[in-house]
Amino acid sequence: MVRTEPREIKLKPIGVVHSPFRVREDVDPRRNIRPTGFSNVHGEIEIDPVYASGLRDISGFSHLIIIFAFHKSGPGHLLVKPPFESRRRGVFSTRSPQRPNPLGMTVVRLLGRRKNVLKVSGIDMLEGTPVLDIKPYTSRDSKRGLTRGWMKGSGSAVRQHADLSRRAREKEK
Amino acid sequence: MVRTEPREIKLKPIGVVHSPFRVREDVDPRRNIRPTGFSNVHGEIEIDPVYASGLRDISGFSHLIIIFAFHKSGPGHLLVKPPFESRRRGVFSTRSPQRPNPLGMTVVRLLGRRKNVLKVSGIDMLEGTPVLDIKPYTSRDSKRGLTRGWMKGSGSAVRQHADLSRRAREKEK
Repeated sequence: MVRTEPREIKLKPIGVVHSPFRVREDVDPRRNIRPTGFSNVHGEIEIDPVYASGLRDISGFSHLIIIFAFHKSGPGHLLVKPPFESRRRGVFSTRSPQRPNPLGMTVVRLLGRRKNVLKVSGIDMLEGTPVLDIKPYTSRDSKRGLTRGWMKGSGSAVRQHADLSRRAREKEK
Repeated sequence: MVRTEPREIKLKPIGVVHSPFRVREDVDPRRNIRPTGFSNVHGEIEIDPVYASGLRDISGFSHLIIIFAFHKSGPGHLLVKPPFESRRRGVFSTRSPQRPNPLGMTVVRLLGRRKNVLKVSGIDMLEGTPVLDIKPYTSRDSKRGLTRGWMKGSGSAVRQHADLSRRAREKEK
């Protein structure tokens, strides 16, 4: 029997993501295939000025953890069909936005700070995404020797794209 | 001007952490110094049975991201004094539990699954911590070449401890 207190957690956005991506299709890996993934996508994290003093000392960190709300993702599901996948997977083995709690987490590179605005790269969120927390990324967060379950066989979007392109080229021959 | 919709995000715990740590002092780095940090601390993530089907496919992953609520941390602050530090730091440059939104994030190693219970190591949360989300840790989350701002000079708890021990030994000479 699982019991936790409190039964409900209420959060307020501390800021907002500014991103080149306007609609959900813009961040769909099937439509948005880049050889470098999202790592070269630049954007900003704009913090509400009332929280700006909490950004003190942040400029020394190369990478930040951004926890945000999937505000456009609709209801959560327990089984989801990831991009390029034919099988449904348990949602907790995916990074699908349609989760029981609509929380997202992305590690971005910090490029600079101007007052309450952080310039970052590695943005995969939509314009207007509510930011819930920012944490420094430390060596404890950097793990090696990963096994990646179903993602291994399925490959990344980039590799998938390479495979599809190769197959298309081979078909043309 | 920062505006986001919705103005409030409501989350429900999907499960609970089982941990050897009962009270906040147990996870205070000043009291709980281990040569390996928390990486060898074993515990369980017990998921509410209604969400258990979302765990399908999870066993193939070596590492999981656990997002949880700091349910014992009291009100948030914008400036906090980290363990071993004399200066107050901006909260978003720390992993302090006393944050504007009481969200925690820890990467754990998955050791096994039995129905709705995940056996993990790397636990640094308290017994009874509400779990909000579980995500697979992927190569995109594993960053190299980190710079760690004020943490670099201050060192990890383990290194601090080593330094304190060395100084104590030198004093005895």
